[in-house]
Order: sequence, then structure tokens, then C-alpha cells
Amino acid sequence: MQTRIFNNKQWFYVRRPDGRVGAEHYELRESAIDDSLANNEVLVQARYISVDPYMRIQQHERRTYDVPHPLGIVQRAGVVAQVLASASERFQPGDWVLGYNGWQLFDKCHANDLQKLDAEAAPVSTALGVLGMPGRTAWFGLMEAGRPRPGETLVVSGAAGAVGSLVTQFGKRAGCRVIGIAGGAKKCAYLLNELGLDGAVDYKAFSSADALAAEIQKQTGGVDIYFDNVGGMVTDAVIPLIKLRARIIICGTISQYDGGLDHPDLAPRMLQHMLFQRATIQGILARDFVARMDEMRAIVAPWVKNREIVFDETIVDGFDQLPQALNMLFEGKNVGKLLVRV
Amino acid sequence: MQTRIFNNKQWFYVRRPDGRVGAEHYELRESAIDDSLANNEVLVQARYISVDPYMRIQQHERRTYDVPHPLGIVQRAGVVAQVLASASERFQPGDWVLGYNGWQLFDKCHANDLQKLDAEAAPVSTALGVLGMPGRTAWFGLMEAGRPRPGETLVVSGAAGAVGSLVTQFGKRAGCRVIGIAGGAKKCAYLLNELGLDGAVDYKAFSSADALAAEIQKQTGGVDIYFDNVGGMVTDAVIPLIKLRARIIICGTISQYDGGLDHPDLAPRMLQHMLFQRATIQGILARDFVARMDEMRAIVAPWVKNREIVFDETIVDGFDQLPQALNMLFEGKNVGKLLVRV
Repeated sequence: MQTRIFNNKQWFYVRRPDGRVGAEHYELRESAIDDSLANNEVLVQARYISVDPYMRIQQHERRTYDVPHPLGIVQRAGVVAQVLASASERFQPGDWVLGYNGWQLFDKCHANDLQKLDAEAAPVSTALGVLGMPGRTAWFGLMEAGRPRPGETLVVSGAAGAVGSLVTQFGKRAGCRVIGIAGGAKKCAYLLNELGLDGAVDYKAFSSADALAAEIQKQTGGVDIYFDNVGGMVTDAVIPLIKLRARIIICGTISQYDGGLDHPDLAPRMLQHMLFQRATIQGILARDFVARMDEMRAIVAPWVKNREIVFDETIVDGFDQLPQALNMLFEGKNVGKLLVRV
Repeated sequence: MQTRIFNNKQWFYVRRPDGRVGAEHYELRESAIDDSLANNEVLVQARYISVDPYMRIQQHERRTYDVPHPLGIVQRAGVVAQVLASASERFQPGDWVLGYNGWQLFDKCHANDLQKLDAEAAPVSTALGVLGMPGRTAWFGLMEAGRPRPGETLVVSGAAGAVGSLVTQFGKRAGCRVIGIAGGAKKCAYLLNELGLDGAVDYKAFSSADALAAEIQKQTGGVDIYFDNVGGMVTDAVIPLIKLRARIIICGTISQYDGGLDHPDLAPRMLQHMLFQRATIQGILARDFVARMDEMRAIVAPWVKNREIVFDETIVDGFDQLPQALNMLFEGKNVGKLLVRV
């Protein structure tokens, strides 16, 4: 069999951006690639190459949820491709596959790194969208972290994006009232007319978080679930509107990807750390556990009785001292529980 | 039986503070109270009156986790008291009780509003501390929201306070490495010597969140659980140090109680809303759910096949357009999943 030669094109990531990313941070290189294959190797030709916000996170020099994307290699990315040649019995020429081959027209990779796609079941490009990583993010983010219940109000930022447009629809199917936030009248019309949402807010029409918050409050009356893809001013506006036991899902902070990750944080922009570490923030109040004091008492009361733990008190004598005593809390003058003995 | 008369003293809350609270926001009033009682009524004499940070939250005009504390009434507070006279068969003179009688020496209340204390089981004042509301906050906040595991690193702000001093010890008993943050060398010595913590950081010795963060990082190597009582600069410092799947418990934001609640928020000071609404923030990443795609596919794939949901794609043609396409994400130029077709 004759060796075929293909003209490959590859985008190498060569320079870290500080701010907006652009062509100047890449180099387009051309080279020849043939179809000679080692055992289990497959030659694929890219048909759809993914472009995702997370790529910008990985371009930062510091550790985020990953080590930084190395310089001098092909930009990593999900790719929907077709098999041109195969030295694996699992793939035949013409097969549609999903791989992580990056920004290049042709690639040789191990058969184990490819996943066969069924072009009959769904359009192949959905393997990079609704039935791929963005869909997984939307589905599990909303269902697992958001725990939507019928009748609740779901607000989604970046609502017209790959993830947001799915979260909004999954939310509708879970019985939520769904309000989408997006930039511009065209996107908002899309949210209302194509996705069938209950409301849409064009954040670009507002110059401050307060003004934006007033509009969102008007449309929602309060937020049970906030699925956040953007961070920044939009999130500044939504967070004060949360209702009791609200769930906030930090899925992205795209408004900061071209600047806020490089430079000092402001406002709830620290939420990027929640994303990178998949961390949880939860507010708690003692009143929520009043009915469960027995559980605690069974364990802690013996420690108190046997003086196994320290429970120091700062005791102020004199009823007349009460307001000053309250003040002491904010001056840090107490150790342990502050009490006034009368 | 002859009627007895007692000289009552009451602190009325009469003026909302803007900043630090003090005696000027209260009025001390004296009056006579006798021991005549209606059926089921009890006359109690306060012995320990509680002073808690939450009182300052309630003094704000706006809704927090509660409606504001009304003006012109006795300051509400937990009280450990003794029964002087009782028209309830449940209480006898001399009994120790826990009530919510507020800042006053004497009070008549319904027997149902009092809880009998066993002075043999534990010092009665602990009903306002380790075996009361602060203990409940510390125990359930740490165990339920923090989910401590042996070997993890727990950082506690306000570590010498009523709640913090218990959280640290509960954390040690759960097998955590515990580092306390407090203000001043004396409190830090207390954390190390009395509470037996693994480390202590005097936040007052640092003039910036960055410098404080460097010290905490040095002592911890990263934070698995952050139990936050203070907010502000201390929290600014800790949050960037969280480790994978860290848990952050927002129990208090005391650094803002005398100012930050009244005035515009900065930095992670929006965390007060997490507290008031007992809300949760959680970071999510698609990779965490790769192994669960089958669950999603079973539900979502039929919606895709039947075109029951919208999965629009923005498709850019041409391999050479890749860097510009990545840029489009940050300019908001895509609707749905952005792909480059090659």
C-alpha cells in the first residue's frame, strides 16, 4: 500500500496572554504527516475543533484547577474527527471519533484515546456540546449542586452560551422558573423565543451592579438557584438577591478570564478559587440545628463534665456593663464565651 | 402570702448604631416588679446574661437573617436565671433555668419559655456557651458543613472566641491539624497552650491579606476546611489557600458587624449573604462527572434525538480562525457551543 502524505496545520501555543488572548499568542505551523502507523495507532482528520473558555484559564502562569498549559505545544482541545487510517481493529477509515487531539488538522494517536461516535444517534458535533463536556457541566452542575425543585427560581448567567443555554432548559424541565442573563438584546430575544425562558436580562443595559440587581429582583422576586458562568458585576448583582437555602453554582467566571485571573481580585471575584478547587461555601446558623441538640449533647456533654475540653468564659460583672460588654466583642476583648454576671 | 417587690433594671434598645455599638444606643431604665403571677407564669432573676455577636447583626435596619431588632424594647438575649416565684408546677423557687428574657434583672414569662438546667451535670453558665447556642453552632457547623476527616487541615478564624475555641477543639478530636487565627500574641498563646492547637496566627501582626496569606500558607501548606467567624481581610487571605474539595463554613463575619453591614461591601464581604440565607457555593468541573455520563445520557440523549431541547452551535469555518474563535468567547460573540469546522 502506498504511503499517503497530508499537509498538516497546527496552532502552537507559544506566548502567555496578559489580558485578551489573540493570534499573537499562537504560531500556525505547517508540516507533512504520512499515514504510516505503529500498532494500535490511528490517523484522524479533524472535522470540528472545540473552543472553550477553560482554555483561557489554563493559559495563566499560576496553578488554577490545573497546571498551566505548557508553552511550545499544540493547543489542547476536544476534536470531532474522522478516521483516515487505522492500525487498530477497533476503528475503520470513515469512523467518526471524539478525541483530545488539539488544534491541528491531522493527528496520530493511540486508539485508546479515541471514542467512537454514532452519527445516527445524534449530530456528531454534539459530542463537543450538549452530549459532551458542556452538557456534562450543565447537567451535573445543575442537578447535583443546584438540586432544582419545581417552582423554584433559577437564574443563569452566560445563559446563551454553550453551558448556560443547556442549564436553562434543564432547569425548565425540572419545573423551575428560569431567568437568563446575557449580553445584548439579540441574545435576550433568543433566550425568550428560542429557549422559552420566563425572563431575560441584558446585563449590558446596566451600568452598575445595583441597577442590574434591581432589574433581576423585579423579574425574580429572589433567587433560589444561581448558576454562574461569568462572575464579576453580574454576580455582584445576583448574590444579594438569594433566598433562604439558595444554591449557588460556580461553573465559570468568564468575565475575569482575560484579566481578573492575572491581576488582583475584587468583589466576589475570589469565587474563581471555588471553581478551581470545587470548594463549597455554606452559611450556617445555630437555629437550624435546635432540634438536633440531643445528638450533640450525647457527645459533647461528657467532655464538659470531665473537663476534657476548654470552655473558658469571659465574665463581666454588673448589669450596667451590658452595652460595653456587647462592644467588647467587636474589640476582640473576650476569650471564649462572653457573659455578664448580674 | 405577702407580695414582694423587686427593683428591676432593664436595658432598652432605642437607637440604631452606624458603626460601633455603645451605651448611647441603649437606655437603662429602673422600675418595680412584684411577684404576683398569672397561671403558668414564672418570675425569674437573671444570673448570667448573654452578649453575642449576632445581636449586632439584628441591630441593622435592613433584613439580614431576621427582621431587625425593634427599637424601644428590652434587648433580646439568652439568660441563665433562677426562679424566684412560680405559678407553674414545672418550676420551683431556686430552680436554674435558661430563657430568652433579654437584658433585664427580673422578668415574668410563661413557663413554656423556660428550660430547666441541671446544675450538677455542668456549670449553669455553659447553657449560654459550650452546651448552648455557641456550642451548637460550632458542633453542627463543623461536623455537618465542614465534614472533618482525620489528617485534614482546619483553619479557624476568631479561634479564641466562644464558637471558634470550640470548633478548634472539636476539630482536634476529629483528627484534624488545626491552626487558629486570632488577634494578638496573648490569644495566640492561649490557642497553643490552652487549646493545644497545632498552630496560631496573629492576624494583627500583618498589614495585608497577602502577607497574612503567606504566613498561613507556611503554617498549613493549604487549607481543607475553613471555619470563618470574621470575614474581611482574614478571609481574603485564607480563600486563595484552599485545597481540592475544601469546605468553607461561613459562620460569622464579625469584622464587618460594626460597619460593613451598614456600608457597601468589598472583597469577599458579600459572604454575609451566605450566612444570612444559609446558602451554599460550590465549584464544579466537568471532569468530576466523567464516570457518570451514562446517567446523563439516559435522560438527555432522547431530548437531543427528538429535538426537544435547543443545542445551537456557533460554527466558525476555517482552521486558521482558531485563535480568533477562542477570543470570540470573551467578546460574547457566540450563542451556544462555539466550534471551528475544518
